[in-house]
Amino acid sequence: MDFESFFREELSQLRKEGRYRVFADLERCAGRFPRAIFHGGGGPREVTVWCSNDYLGMGQHPVVLKAMHEALDGCGAGTGGTRNIAGTNHYHVLLERELADLHGKEGALLFNSGYMSNWASLSTLASRIPGCIVLTDALNHASMIEGIRHSRADKAIFAHNDAADLRRKLQAMDPARPKLIAFESVYSMDGDIAPVADFCDIAEEFGAMTYIDEVHAVGLYGPRGGGISERDGLSHRLDLIEGTLAKSFSVMGGYITGSAALCDYLRSFASGFIFSSSLPPTLAAGALAAIRHLKTSSVERDRQRDRVQTLRRRLDEAGIPHLPNPSHIVPVMVGDAVRCKQISDEMLERFSIYVQPINYPTVPRGTERLRITPTPLHSDEDIETLVQALSTIWGALGLQRAA
Amino acid sequence: MDFESFFREELSQLRKEGRYRVFADLERCAGRFPRAIFHGGGGPREVTVWCSNDYLGMGQHPVVLKAMHEALDGCGAGTGGTRNIAGTNHYHVLLERELADLHGKEGALLFNSGYMSNWASLSTLASRIPGCIVLTDALNHASMIEGIRHSRADKAIFAHNDAADLRRKLQAMDPARPKLIAFESVYSMDGDIAPVADFCDIAEEFGAMTYIDEVHAVGLYGPRGGGISERDGLSHRLDLIEGTLAKSFSVMGGYITGSAALCDYLRSFASGFIFSSSLPPTLAAGALAAIRHLKTSSVERDRQRDRVQTLRRRLDEAGIPHLPNPSHIVPVMVGDAVRCKQISDEMLERFSIYVQPINYPTVPRGTERLRITPTPLHSDEDIETLVQALSTIWGALGLQRAA
Repeated sequence: MDFESFFREELSQLRKEGRYRVFADLERCAGRFPRAIFHGGGGPREVTVWCSNDYLGMGQHPVVLKAMHEALDGCGAGTGGTRNIAGTNHYHVLLERELADLHGKEGALLFNSGYMSNWASLSTLASRIPGCIVLTDALNHASMIEGIRHSRADKAIFAHNDAADLRRKLQAMDPARPKLIAFESVYSMDGDIAPVADFCDIAEEFGAMTYIDEVHAVGLYGPRGGGISERDGLSHRLDLIEGTLAKSFSVMGGYITGSAALCDYLRSFASGFIFSSSLPPTLAAGALAAIRHLKTSSVERDRQRDRVQTLRRRLDEAGIPHLPNPSHIVPVMVGDAVRCKQISDEMLERFSIYVQPINYPTVPRGTERLRITPTPLHSDEDIETLVQALSTIWGALGLQRAA
Repeated sequence: MDFESFFREELSQLRKEGRYRVFADLERCAGRFPRAIFHGGGGPREVTVWCSNDYLGMGQHPVVLKAMHEALDGCGAGTGGTRNIAGTNHYHVLLERELADLHGKEGALLFNSGYMSNWASLSTLASRIPGCIVLTDALNHASMIEGIRHSRADKAIFAHNDAADLRRKLQAMDPARPKLIAFESVYSMDGDIAPVADFCDIAEEFGAMTYIDEVHAVGLYGPRGGGISERDGLSHRLDLIEGTLAKSFSVMGGYITGSAALCDYLRSFASGFIFSSSLPPTLAAGALAAIRHLKTSSVERDRQRDRVQTLRRRLDEAGIPHLPNPSHIVPVMVGDAVRCKQISDEMLERFSIYVQPINYPTVPRGTERLRITPTPLHSDEDIETLVQALSTIWGALGLQRAA
């Protein structure tokens, strides 16, 4: 076996399909977001970032940076261990309490990433609960799919956000078997939102456990940033709420919240939790500061909503097609991998605007897009520049305008 | 199904077996390592940590803290995205170059944890290389086991560190099928070291790809801290070298290094890489500083070796049984989960010494132990206090002394 040739051939196949990924080498500039330095061909230059998941710009907020500097001075660089072996830092304890409070739960548990929190929690629950069947939304995130796959539990995929289909699937199942329903609140790529209350009704009817991924909602929805479940007053009806520290809370890491027994169970049995070195104090401190700030401040959320609305209106006026949805995510649809990359390249080259093309496997083939995320820090002028750039490119490439 | 009762019953089973884990709530003190504040019953108090994987104390080194503060001031809290979508920071690029250089490889790829680097790399390679068979050491880390399991590839487990058994397993296999040999260099819990050269010979003979986990060796072995593979001049014979940023390099994160095509392949196909928000600039900057420092400074390694030797000598003199091995890990063997926890509790209560008990599933039942890790920052007096404490407890509990 010639391993090198195999790797190279698989990579050239990606290139042929136009979905070989080129990472934009960016240097973020604290205090100047959404501006960043792009280290591309022809030397470093300034660009405006329009596809960040630092949704509220908390990554440069003084309360976050101050907390991180203090934790660094106080506790040093890392924790030096797994949570069990020398690696539980007092900041973890405080952050887990804060997260439990955010979601109105008894407990919380930190992971090194949102991917890990989904993968480890779902694989542990579905493999260890005897006879468990998982009901999983057709568009769930890769981390949830892989966690369920890893468990080797039986599963049924229900149609995306389709409560009727979920009910049909449950009705066809042995009532005696334990069931776990796994879904997201805000879906990252289409920006649509699950019928969470309907899912809760159905789960209660069939005695199923509910698992919700709120990574694209925490910090953004609900009066304290507790996500869609808080906004809709449903937190107490969801058994497990999963979230991230890497988007609105601006650092890195994932978490779950739930009953004390559930959190203790995953703490005690989830391999991906047990055998990972823990989050550095500086990250836990930063997340803690961001969460506390967003529990009482709605300025960022209000301004973000205004920016989203303004951008949508301007896109409509310019005839740039974008997917309507009730969230903060603005998908400008292209529908072809090569074309999508070309638009993104031109935006960067000609207009110093950075929006990454989104291709398969992140979205289905034929639905390639530019996923735009307005933040409170994008000005009216930024919006104008973006819409003008898109409009110019749309014209130059002869792309279809929206009606 | 009463999920709550199920969780509670499983937890009480752990308690019955004496292996319910109680995390020590620690507040590390930059500049005072190995001292830390223990937040336990009776208010916070100072303890000496003897089980940290911050092996060289780099977590409080001025060059590391300075680099982290600077990255925080420069780039802010996090990256705001996955590596592909707005989340590649210039520090990642620099760090991947540095890691490739450390191991004499063309490329490197960062992950959010060592667990993720093993799980994602092994599952991707073993599932995507057509017909791949994995040969895996019997004592490989949980993250490797789970990665191989996730791939669903055929596998053969060879006896721990046993080159003859590896050869026998390979001889019995279809020569046409691609093979991947996965092992660690330094094994965390016993501190023994793999016969890496023998494994390379055998791999070359059978045309197998080699995958080595060096997480407990990077920074510590080899003239530049490139691990056992550097120390033994074998880096070029290993196809993939995996390491961590969370132990000697003192922050958090994992990585792999290898050929440009291999790294690009995992970058392009590993789900756990693609769908995770990336490492914050501050962590990448801290790791970069630690690696650069340890490439040219051997003071820390030399002093650590001296501390390990001194501790072993003093344990021998006191008759405290410990596992002999050629590494920096000093396992004091107890062999019983309840007893192990009791010793650890007494160390903390009576002597303000923190050494976590290591129980199943981290080690096999019957081999429960205190895993002691001397660092350059443990003084002669620290060693005396530790040995006296162990000796006192050994006497009080009537435990067997070593000959």
